[in-house]
Amino acid sequence: MTLARKHLLGIEPLERAEIEEILGLAVSMKELLRQDLKKSPALRGKTVINCFFESSTRTRSSFEIAAKILSADAVNWSSSGSSVSKGESLIDTAKNLEAMRPDILVIRHAASGAPHLVASRVGCAVVNAGDGAHEHPSQALLDAFTLRERWGSLEGRTVAIVGDIRHSRVARSNIYCLRKLGARVRLCGPPTMIPIGIEALGCDTTFDLREAVTGADAVMMLRIQNERIAGSLFPSTREYSKLYGLSQAKTSWLKDDALILHPGPINRGVELEPEVADGERSVILDQVENGVAVRMAILQLLAGGVA
Amino acid sequence: MTLARKHLLGIEPLERAEIEEILGLAVSMKELLRQDLKKSPALRGKTVINCFFESSTRTRSSFEIAAKILSADAVNWSSSGSSVSKGESLIDTAKNLEAMRPDILVIRHAASGAPHLVASRVGCAVVNAGDGAHEHPSQALLDAFTLRERWGSLEGRTVAIVGDIRHSRVARSNIYCLRKLGARVRLCGPPTMIPIGIEALGCDTTFDLREAVTGADAVMMLRIQNERIAGSLFPSTREYSKLYGLSQAKTSWLKDDALILHPGPINRGVELEPEVADGERSVILDQVENGVAVRMAILQLLAGGVA
Amino acid sequence: MTLARKHLLGIEPLERAEIEEILGLAVSMKELLRQDLKKSPALRGKTVINCFFESSTRTRSSFEIAAKILSADAVNWSSSGSSVSKGESLIDTAKNLEAMRPDILVIRHAASGAPHLVASRVGCAVVNAGDGAHEHPSQALLDAFTLRERWGSLEGRTVAIVGDIRHSRVARSNIYCLRKLGARVRLCGPPTMIPIGIEALGCDTTFDLREAVTGADAVMMLRIQNERIAGSLFPSTREYSKLYGLSQAKTSWLKDDALILHPGPINRGVELEPEVADGERSVILDQVENGVAVRMAILQLLAGGVA
Repeated sequence: MTLARKHLLGIEPLERAEIEEILGLAVSMKELLRQDLKKSPALRGKTVINCFFESSTRTRSSFEIAAKILSADAVNWSSSGSSVSKGESLIDTAKNLEAMRPDILVIRHAASGAPHLVASRVGCAVVNAGDGAHEHPSQALLDAFTLRERWGSLEGRTVAIVGDIRHSRVARSNIYCLRKLGARVRLCGPPTMIPIGIEALGCDTTFDLREAVTGADAVMMLRIQNERIAGSLFPSTREYSKLYGLSQAKTSWLKDDALILHPGPINRGVELEPEVADGERSVILDQVENGVAVRMAILQLLAGGVA
Repeated sequence: MTLARKHLLGIEPLERAEIEEILGLAVSMKELLRQDLKKSPALRGKTVINCFFESSTRTRSSFEIAAKILSADAVNWSSSGSSVSKGESLIDTAKNLEAMRPDILVIRHAASGAPHLVASRVGCAVVNAGDGAHEHPSQALLDAFTLRERWGSLEGRTVAIVGDIRHSRVARSNIYCLRKLGARVRLCGPPTMIPIGIEALGCDTTFDLREAVTGADAVMMLRIQNERIAGSLFPSTREYSKLYGLSQAKTSWLKDDALILHPGPINRGVELEPEVADGERSVILDQVENGVAVRMAILQLLAGGVA
Repeated sequence: MTLARKHLLGIEPLERAEIEEILGLAVSMKELLRQDLKKSPALRGKTVINCFFESSTRTRSSFEIAAKILSADAVNWSSSGSSVSKGESLIDTAKNLEAMRPDILVIRHAASGAPHLVASRVGCAVVNAGDGAHEHPSQALLDAFTLRERWGSLEGRTVAIVGDIRHSRVARSNIYCLRKLGARVRLCGPPTMIPIGIEALGCDTTFDLREAVTGADAVMMLRIQNERIAGSLFPSTREYSKLYGLSQAKTSWLKDDALILHPGPINRGVELEPEVADGERSVILDQVENGVAVRMAILQLLAGGVA
């Protein structure tokens, strides 16, 4: 293991050098991914269990493909129809999965801190694939990879993150990651969606989209969860879209070479107009491809495989 | 790639030589499938994503086994619990899956034309595993393979297809495939289930089962979808079964060596009496085995593997 | 095939030597499982279909991991969303799966005898992964493996099984297995849960927990199915727990070196107090790990691989 760390639970505890270690290995992984025959024997004889307490076909498939390209055995475990629905506790589930001797447990859970709790109780490596509104480290790493691919370095760059910052694990992990890599971060959203005191993480905040994106080198639009908006009086989806959605017209506020990111899945017409999502500035599909490469790097570093 | 074609979207656009190319390769694939150690390295380093927007464990398993025997990495993606349930569009889903760099996307979708739309927008190969009431090309190919295995050639043979022709993608793909391979096709079903003008595809039609099967070399019984019948005044399941079901008694109308096919799953007692489904004339289980062989051939031809 | 038998349908028909054959091979399998690179080429070119008509992520994952470590292709088939939900019969499903030429079908079904029926109709090997209230042979084998690992031999040992004996396939398979290996078996539970005449299998029965566990070398606590208790007047979950749950206090009745087993998932606070489940006597997680090793041995013996 090159990474001097057993688990990947979040970006917050990582040193900059560790982040760069992962992103550096991901560069070779992307080369492998683009080859006609994309297969490495690095993790042959290793087992990865994708343990998803929240369904997410996309993230699960990304980890599964990453594991298989590296020749690991990948097993999908989901809580539906499992012992969890029979009332088993998280720790019992985790200890049971650990007993099957996987090398890595990839965990997604609705509760913040669930992967940390598991990691404190099992002997194998744990990867946080999203825990509640807390962290989603592989997403932040693939975002950073995508930006570095375009810019070389994030040092001195400005990234605006727009949306429901309060409930977003993607935002939280990105704030840590971008700051550690030397970027400036601006957070933008309606007042109900910006947590008080978040400036303490070294970010600027604004409720005004134009102010947020003007001069930014990249704009990261978060997904608006309609089910969350539905329950609140303000903003409505229509109001949100009008004030914080990025329409083609509003892209005139952006720098010419500003990049647009989105963690997906996109609500077309809400946070992004289709023309913007599919436009020249968009690196959204690069993010997806880079997600496989970054997850290959994470798995290989944690499973102790040789590059 | 031997097949001068990137996708397998339907039988309609295929040349006879292309159909024969696939069926020819499937012969060797069936030999491999029957070996004690059934494994070929042909697609090692290739990734197949089975992308099923309609659930179908049977067809999905057939493609999955085919991919694995050829050493491809197979990943199952289904719309339940995925970003689709969060409102993602078909194209966004497809572009996201493509970004993970699969070599082949196998797609089943309730909407006719969905795989074609996807194929027009992605760079990887697309296989239609059934789209609405349109086409189900791998089913028609495995049916043709099954008949050729018995007859050598379909030239001059007569095949009767009985059931809900109007809503059947199996019927449609089979009409194209059987006609291209030189067979005569008779379509039979209640008037509500035979589309007007279908004779333009070069078939005969009749509402009379006896007329349809008399002298036919093979009879292909389609599955009656009870949920469809339930909504209509005529025929009831009981009437349908009486008029169009193939009972043991009615098999006296058949030629002695006539073959009986069914794409499965069978409604025993509705379109087929159990004695007929399990009888000597039935090649229904051959169809299932040949399905794996034919899908191996399809995957190998499209992924550019070497035989 | 070392095992002079094509299927593993239950423990009842096995000879002691056959059980010992499986347990012996499982010892090497556990060594492999504990290696840093856990991979054997033994079942390369073989296909295992996990065919689960009842959902059980845990047992399915255990078989899947076992198959993959041995390099078999593992395919998961479940009845939800499959042809079964369209009304297909068990035999039709099994014949269809067999036609895809798997080497082994691993079957879980709610109906007692379902795997036997399938085995009588298919050509491939069948493993019973739990059928109704009948047998769950791989569970009994992993339990025996766990006890042998601690004791060397079961000869002359006493094992108490506590819970809903009447509805438990785990209990039934364990009674056969423990008896054949020379152990004495005591069954304990409320009168409604002990079938009349079960002493004919060579067991003692008692309704008194203290009597059951006093002097026992191991106590196997069964999972109480709340849904089953809910429908009955007696006992309530609270009464059950008071009378038959193993609390920390009651462990004073046990021999100092008595082992505690549970097939999982545990209802903490019902049949086992957390302190007992996680205590020094508990071998519950050993059971899970040994489950993978035992299933590896089963698959290898049935698929005719070379050790």
